[in-house]
Amino acid sequence: MLYWEDLQVGANFGTATHTVTVEEIVAFARQYDPQPFHLDAEAAKASLFGEQVASGWHTAAISMRLMVQGEMQVVGGVVGHVMEELRFPRPVRPGDTLRVVQEVEAKEEFPGRPGHGRLKLRCRTYNQHGKIVQDLTAHLIVPRRPTAASLVS
Amino acid sequence: MLYWEDLQVGANFGTATHTVTVEEIVAFARQYDPQPFHLDAEAAKASLFGEQVASGWHTAAISMRLMVQGEMQVVGGVVGHVMEELRFPRPVRPGDTLRVVQEVEAKEEFPGRPGHGRLKLRCRTYNQHGKIVQDLTAHLIVPRRPTAASLVS
Repeated sequence: MLYWEDLQVGANFGTATHTVTVEEIVAFARQYDPQPFHLDAEAAKASLFGEQVASGWHTAAISMRLMVQGEMQVVGGVVGHVMEELRFPRPVRPGDTLRVVQEVEAKEEFPGRPGHGRLKLRCRTYNQHGKIVQDLTAHLIVPRRPTAASLVS
Repeated sequence: MLYWEDLQVGANFGTATHTVTVEEIVAFARQYDPQPFHLDAEAAKASLFGEQVASGWHTAAISMRLMVQGEMQVVGGVVGHVMEELRFPRPVRPGDTLRVVQEVEAKEEFPGRPGHGRLKLRCRTYNQHGKIVQDLTAHLIVPRRPTAASLVS
């Protein structure tokens, strides 16, 4: 389990993969993003996308699970309080297989929260063709390693 | 149904409300964000939050549904390709009642997509105390009103 001190700028972490089914796309869309281009392949043809695609929020949710269960295991869990940018350069289609690569872009002090630091993390979600379907820059709150002094007091 | 031309800078649009249950928080977390502070009230006490809270991605997904079914009904649906910023200033707790206010902050040409414009939309999700739990700035792709010339051709 990693503390703020263990995470070096430039470090990369991978995840498992997840193959997105049409059933999953429709189930998520019914509950959270009920629009024709997510719900129905035929109706999607007349949309901006021209085909059935996953909700961007579904892609974000799948990416989150991959990261929570991925290589970068942080003490205290994955707690993001600011997403600086979230782009969907390409749609996710039924049958696409996704994975995420997380890269530490910067480390910041976090005076507002003693015992914690901030981490600027670039999280790119790729499909099976190696193309980016989601590009997220997140700021996480990460516990700092307890010092001898803090352990004694 | 609104075209790009119909949406004026400064215009505000509301949504219905949604009360978040603990069952819903756990179901979303199991599937997309399986961390103790979302899954279990007792385990959450030892977390940064100190209590069980909804996943930020769950808050985002609920906010999306409220917007898709809200007052701002755009031709072609809600298609966001870039989220400029997504903040979670406060956690969402079981029993919280959410609603969203969408405000048009800017309108931009979109040369890359003929017949469409871009819309910079500030989407604030409030809880029942009127406090902001999510603050999203999104850029949407919105169809432009067909001109007489384009209808003839």
